[in-house]
Parts: sequence; C-alpha cells; structure tokens
Amino acid sequence: MKQNPLPAELPGTDRTRHRRLREQGSDDRGALDAILGAGFLCHFGVVVDGHPMVVPTVYGADALNLYFHGSVASRSLVAAPTATVCVTVTHVDGLVLARSVFEHGVNYRSAMIYGTPRVVTDPTEKLAALRCLTEQSAPGQWDYARRPSRKELAATVLLALSLEEASVKIRTGDPDDGDGPDAALPIWAGTLPLVTTFGSERPDAALPEAITAPPHITARVGTRLG
Amino acid sequence: MKQNPLPAELPGTDRTRHRRLREQGSDDRGALDAILGAGFLCHFGVVVDGHPMVVPTVYGADALNLYFHGSVASRSLVAAPTATVCVTVTHVDGLVLARSVFEHGVNYRSAMIYGTPRVVTDPTEKLAALRCLTEQSAPGQWDYARRPSRKELAATVLLALSLEEASVKIRTGDPDDGDGPDAALPIWAGTLPLVTTFGSERPDAALPEAITAPPHITARVGTRLG
Repeated sequence: MKQNPLPAELPGTDRTRHRRLREQGSDDRGALDAILGAGFLCHFGVVVDGHPMVVPTVYGADALNLYFHGSVASRSLVAAPTATVCVTVTHVDGLVLARSVFEHGVNYRSAMIYGTPRVVTDPTEKLAALRCLTEQSAPGQWDYARRPSRKELAATVLLALSLEEASVKIRTGDPDDGDGPDAALPIWAGTLPLVTTFGSERPDAALPEAITAPPHITARVGTRLG
Repeated sequence: MKQNPLPAELPGTDRTRHRRLREQGSDDRGALDAILGAGFLCHFGVVVDGHPMVVPTVYGADALNLYFHGSVASRSLVAAPTATVCVTVTHVDGLVLARSVFEHGVNYRSAMIYGTPRVVTDPTEKLAALRCLTEQSAPGQWDYARRPSRKELAATVLLALSLEEASVKIRTGDPDDGDGPDAALPIWAGTLPLVTTFGSERPDAALPEAITAPPHITARVGTRLG
C-alpha cells in the first residue's frame, strides 16, 4: 500500500466526530485507505435545488484525493464544486443475528468524506485522475484499452475531493447481547457473512473469437472484492 | 411478490425525470419493487446544518413505504422528518470492460426515492414497520428472536418514506463500443460479473454448543443476495 502523506490520525471536525456508537468509529487513516482501496463504488451526496441527491458512482482514490467523473450535463456533478458534498463508501460484511430483534444489525466498513470538490482542469492532472479512476475498478485496463481522445477528455468533468475531512465506521464480530440476560435464551445467535466475488468474464457478443481475455482480467475470476 | 397498489408507472417529477442516459432509466414500478426487494442496505441522504450527509443504513420495504430506524440521538434521523431526503439503493452486477477507457462502466440496478419521511408513532404501525425492517435483511428472525420490549421500542425512532416519488436506473449487458470504430481494435471487451453470496453461519462465541442454527438461517448459506 502506498504511503499516505496526510496525518495518520483522522482530524475530528464537527461533522466527522463520532457522536454515537463510539466503539464503531475509527480515527485511523490506514482504516480509511483500506476501505477506499477495497471498492470502486461510492454514494455521492450533493444538494441540488435545495434537496439532497444521492448518486451511485465510481471513484478513484489516491493518497490525497477521491476522483469522480461524469458528463458535463450531469446535474449532481455540476452542482458539486460550489457546495459541500458527502461521499460514502460502504462494504457490507454480513448480518448480525442477535438473540433479540433489537440487537440485530450489520457488520460493515464505511467511510464518509466531506468537502467541496475541485474541478480538475490541468490536462496532465486530468489524465492522471482518469487513470486513477480506471485502475480503481479495472486494474490493468489503462495500459490495455484505448486511452481517452482529446474530444472524450473535453466531454468529461473530473472532480477531486480532498481526503482531509473523513470519518470511518467499522463493525465486526459477534452480536452484542452475548453477555446480557438474553444470552440465557434458547436462541441461536451469530453472524451470516456476505462475500462478493468476481464471476467468469463474459465476452462481448460483437467480439471476434480470436481475441481472448488478457491475464489481468482472467486473474480476477473467483477472487473476492472488498 | 406482493401486489403493489401504487400506479404501475413511476410518476415523472422534476427530480426523478431521467435527464441523461435515458436508455438506462425505467418507469416501471415492478423494477423499483424488485430492486428494493433484492437488498437491505441503502444510502440515506439528508441535509444536516446545511450540508449533505449520506448514511448507510438498513431499510425495510413494503408496497407503499420504505422504513428506517435508529436511535433517538441520531443526527441524520432527527433531521430527516423536517426535510426532503434522498434514499438510494444500489446493486452492482459487474464491470463493463470496453475497448476504450471512455466506455468503461458498471452494470448495476439502482433506485432513488425522494420525499419527506414521517415519524411512525402509532404502536401497531411501529411494530409492523420494525417487523418489515427485520424481515428485509433477516427473514424468519421476527418470529424466532426475542421481540422488542416496550423500553426498546421507545428508544427507537422509526421513519416511513413513501415510495410515490422514485426513479430507477438499470444498466445491463455488453459495452457500448461494439458497433463503433473501436470494435476493429484487437482489444478484448466484455463484462466481469460480481456476485454476492452468503457464507456459512458463524455461531456467537458465547453461544452454548447445544443451540444450533435454525433452518431459516442455514438455508441461506451459499445463496445469492441481490
């Protein structure tokens, strides 16, 4: 994992301070980097016309920023650089099945990043950000597929969001009612894990048979995401 | 699947109208119900102190409403009943690996629901909403685990959000550059599916060995979520 130049401890701000379920909060930047590195999809929250809008979108993460892209016509992306956004990345690891309904829950890892995104305009930085975005979900594809043309680059809005203001929440392990009075009940309790894996690659219907999938794609089949 | 009394066609409002990528939009309420039925985690977007906050949380869905619960101390839940929220449910089905970086993307199913949630106060409705929430992620547990006590119910805020204003986006299938000039490039293209499955149940460390997992839990092992 790359060295992160930001402080090792996540800064506490009014938005990121863990007000509830403190035991689930983490102030460790390594935990943030791990959560961001384990996925490629986030939920991007922005206020449009006074109302929140939560848009699922892909991201790229480097040590300092999250990157997002979209069409110049996208409402959420156009609104974002003038206002605070909240971007959330969540991995669900399983169900927590307690003795009581009240203690049921989910094992998960989640990161929330707050800030005002910056539009990336410098051509070199734009290309680097697009590379980061592409490699986040599809490592190896930047060097394998056709790179963006000048026209394609112009049609793409790229946003960078600093990772400075972030919070992390993680829940792992057993239900919380194993040491209370409910532990005496004759009720099974435990967790039911959820695992996300890559299936076998499916060639495009228009693809000539002679073109086989490269190793950087086939190597992912059967591996776990997150 | 239960009959949905809302109109079969999702109503177009200024927020839900598909402005871009129209081919990915769906106006079919059946598609909405299917997306909500296939999961249990949403991203709940609400404006708190002027800023968006996107919180991962579990939901329950019936034919008319989404239900959410949380502590009476939760910032996002307390803010929600006085303002519009946007709740997004997303299932990622795979990576779209095109010939060009520009056409890379994700196959997914996503629903966005807009509205102002209502606090559920009627005890009967509150219990029904909690049942719906519990059964969404952990079917069978409402009848198996210990039901909420009066004190637990009082400590829980329950919100109902009408499904009236919703939009659906779905992307499936091959990359989009199979019929353009890039199709002549000697580059593999296709999709890499992502599948989420339940692993084997893990008993709580404090559980007596004599208590075995009930069939409604063990039957899910190896099955697919979503």
